[in-house]
Amino acid sequence: MSEVRPARRTRGGGGAARRAERTAVSIETAKFITRNIPNFEILNEEALQIIEYNAETVLEEIGVNFVENPAALERWRAAGADVVGERVRIPRGLARQLCSTAPSSFTQHARNPERNVEIGGKNLVLAPVYGPPFVRDNEGGRRYATIEDFRKFVKLGYMSKWLHHSGGTVCEPTDIAVNKRHLDMLLAHMTLSDKPYMGSVTEKVRAEDSVNMSKILFGGDFVDQNTVMTSLININSPLTFDNVMMGALEVYAEANQAAIISPFIVGGAMAPVTVAGTLTQVLAEALAGVAYSQLVRKGAPVIMGAFVTSIDMNSGAPTFGTPEAAHITYGVGQLARRLNLPYRSGGSFSGSKLPDAQAAYETSNSLNMALLSGVNFMLHACGWLEGGLVASFEKFVLDADQLGTLHHLAQGVSMDENGQAMNALREVGPGGHFLGCEHTQANFKSAFWRSDVLDYKPYEQWEEEGARDSATLAGARVRKMLGDYQAPPIDPAIVEALEAYVAQRKASEPDAFG
Amino acid sequence: MSEVRPARRTRGGGGAARRAERTAVSIETAKFITRNIPNFEILNEEALQIIEYNAETVLEEIGVNFVENPAALERWRAAGADVVGERVRIPRGLARQLCSTAPSSFTQHARNPERNVEIGGKNLVLAPVYGPPFVRDNEGGRRYATIEDFRKFVKLGYMSKWLHHSGGTVCEPTDIAVNKRHLDMLLAHMTLSDKPYMGSVTEKVRAEDSVNMSKILFGGDFVDQNTVMTSLININSPLTFDNVMMGALEVYAEANQAAIISPFIVGGAMAPVTVAGTLTQVLAEALAGVAYSQLVRKGAPVIMGAFVTSIDMNSGAPTFGTPEAAHITYGVGQLARRLNLPYRSGGSFSGSKLPDAQAAYETSNSLNMALLSGVNFMLHACGWLEGGLVASFEKFVLDADQLGTLHHLAQGVSMDENGQAMNALREVGPGGHFLGCEHTQANFKSAFWRSDVLDYKPYEQWEEEGARDSATLAGARVRKMLGDYQAPPIDPAIVEALEAYVAQRKASEPDAFG
Repeated sequence: MSEVRPARRTRGGGGAARRAERTAVSIETAKFITRNIPNFEILNEEALQIIEYNAETVLEEIGVNFVENPAALERWRAAGADVVGERVRIPRGLARQLCSTAPSSFTQHARNPERNVEIGGKNLVLAPVYGPPFVRDNEGGRRYATIEDFRKFVKLGYMSKWLHHSGGTVCEPTDIAVNKRHLDMLLAHMTLSDKPYMGSVTEKVRAEDSVNMSKILFGGDFVDQNTVMTSLININSPLTFDNVMMGALEVYAEANQAAIISPFIVGGAMAPVTVAGTLTQVLAEALAGVAYSQLVRKGAPVIMGAFVTSIDMNSGAPTFGTPEAAHITYGVGQLARRLNLPYRSGGSFSGSKLPDAQAAYETSNSLNMALLSGVNFMLHACGWLEGGLVASFEKFVLDADQLGTLHHLAQGVSMDENGQAMNALREVGPGGHFLGCEHTQANFKSAFWRSDVLDYKPYEQWEEEGARDSATLAGARVRKMLGDYQAPPIDPAIVEALEAYVAQRKASEPDAFG
Repeated sequence: MSEVRPARRTRGGGGAARRAERTAVSIETAKFITRNIPNFEILNEEALQIIEYNAETVLEEIGVNFVENPAALERWRAAGADVVGERVRIPRGLARQLCSTAPSSFTQHARNPERNVEIGGKNLVLAPVYGPPFVRDNEGGRRYATIEDFRKFVKLGYMSKWLHHSGGTVCEPTDIAVNKRHLDMLLAHMTLSDKPYMGSVTEKVRAEDSVNMSKILFGGDFVDQNTVMTSLININSPLTFDNVMMGALEVYAEANQAAIISPFIVGGAMAPVTVAGTLTQVLAEALAGVAYSQLVRKGAPVIMGAFVTSIDMNSGAPTFGTPEAAHITYGVGQLARRLNLPYRSGGSFSGSKLPDAQAAYETSNSLNMALLSGVNFMLHACGWLEGGLVASFEKFVLDADQLGTLHHLAQGVSMDENGQAMNALREVGPGGHFLGCEHTQANFKSAFWRSDVLDYKPYEQWEEEGARDSATLAGARVRKMLGDYQAPPIDPAIVEALEAYVAQRKASEPDAFG
């Protein structure tokens, strides 16, 4: 069984926090996954070398664009790149060499130290869906997301045993001004959950707000010395680094906060239509992006990301859970390990409009391949629907439940004497039954992963109870979890200070929309 | 893209067959999968040796029972086993040595030679669900299966591009007498499809009927010299071989027809609750069963099987798509390869009552693990529902569609010049778009797997068309496929002879039920 850690003392908790804690419902969160199984290696050494050679050729011959960012161009020029206009051509080997100062693994701290995560190595940290402007649930259907929806998702994430991370923009709170919603999102993550979280990346100033609020939560010295945020920096594929994303990256790298540097690729549109071509581009982009983070600050924690889908060439729609996405995800994993960098990919991807069979096929395909690809940080691990346009409440809890299978899979096979079970085989013998034997009794509680939401009931009972499908069962689980929710303890003075920061920042500029 | 083979000339087709062929709708069937990717090896050498040692200990110390089968006991005694009562204790190494005469790979012939399958090596052959007494569809709900349902499933299997095999008892035709239904099932497989099929195993005489009817279809000499059936012989775990199943095995082995020798295990009930313990028992049972097939006829084609599920310790219900089942499936694959035997496992397993998200999560977990486990023959590859009690029409076509992902995954990554796509990367450059480039145009038709049933439409169109979920879309596909169905060409004289055999055998004994 996975190690499960109960809620404990929180960072910065004073007497008030301790009082709050005494009445709090204990929430179990599994420790992040540490794989005791091998990775699946789809590419052989020759294929890896070809892709690595080609990626260096792309950087050297074609180069990458750093848009509207003279400081970045200056950094690259100083490092030895060939800069013409906004085009940066990187001599063979330089980017890889620059990447070598990035840590192969780092700790992201949570305000509850029991929820700290280690990102890199054999570990896998799971975080929820990121970015949807819409939400969907059984009762209300599909609608624009609000801050109230956002808070519900943060609560569900906090309550989800197999989720290690509170995430970032779990949905877009579209009822709050674009230039202010990051403040409300951060406040929700910081106060409604005690799991680690992500910072804002949509403007440089919002990244600065994220750092400032984290300093209120953790203390300024602590943030200076430790990584408390992992934020998502997308590359504009092909081969383009825009100044908004790079601005946020610069803020985070300078503050020694972690960034996921990730191409966002719909294959055949933003990258070549073939797997090896896409792998080449992903590697070139990651090399350039990670190298740039190290030019900003040597040793800044960074994750090599790959968000890759295929495309339905009939409709142009992105498609999910496809074999081509799996090939790429496996391949990037190998490339990232050869760079000694933590790897981000995978997720509960689906193009379906509903949490139905399509959603689950596509999601399971993605989750399984991500585990075996050696992913270290899985954003979108639950709740993603309709190509990322929708955060689904029901799918969130269904997917979050499935994440338990990844924990158990990753444990591998126990070969100790108890695992070998020779005494059980001797005790039962031909034609016997294991249910009652001593070995079964001693092990059954932890032997098998068990779903908390799927239906295992006898047919007749299931029918009497309304013949409910998974989406209906999940709806009931959402209501139960939100009903049971109690906020994790936190020093009220910290909440006050955070609220004051948000109020002051909101008052300092007019609302902006769109 | 997978090689797809169109319907061609069929075996035994005369002028009438050729006339029929000219008007037949061409049905595409993909060639069986040949893996161009590695297998996933979850156990290290030490673990494999421990399990192999323990399995031999089980055979030597505990032994297996061959029930009500004096001839089998005599065969074992002659081979050097220690036989006391019905208990057969097999000296260390003997079973493994006997298994070495079984072929590592064999051809199962179809009446259409284009649909022959190679079982073993790097291949994966996909066959539909086997055994459910109930069927379910959107309109009729859950009900006892009839021969009309059975024929519909055979037609769907024939029409399913990614299915290589027509299977056996796709559902139980409960409206036909127990002692006669095998005749109608065989007739349906032989006339409504031209894919390979399975024989009956429920009585020795029914296995003989299967051989006799195959001789009518293929010609007697052909059947004597070639394998035209692969049939399912279940072991009564733990460690028990009953005389009905062994009787059928003896018929098939003597006729040089293939048998899957397969433990049927609900972990914690018919085997130890731990993975390593179950692997030990599965290996011991397979060693004894496969060795016995070689005692009946040296060189008889045989498949080492493992049907393994875990159990919900609260309700006692078997559970599917679980991490423990994956561990076992990966492990048995390694053990089978070390025995140089073809391997059967995996399937569209689910405990759900409906073709909903639960069904799809569990099924995808199972299908993905089966591909990476090195399975050579996957029974139950589509249509399985409710723990195998129900064959679902909608799930059949949804699962059969997903089998396409396994074909594409197994292709691996093309590293030729076209795959590397350096010209495309050069042509498009930073900030460009790949949709229109020459490389994309040349490759897009075959680059990505595409579902034939899942929804990729824009939201608005999907909503206008009725906001249909996967089960509803699948229902429409079932109706379309059955409407489009045309029987593959066959010599009418052969059909007459088969029908005469069935009529004669049905008239020869009274109906038996239950």
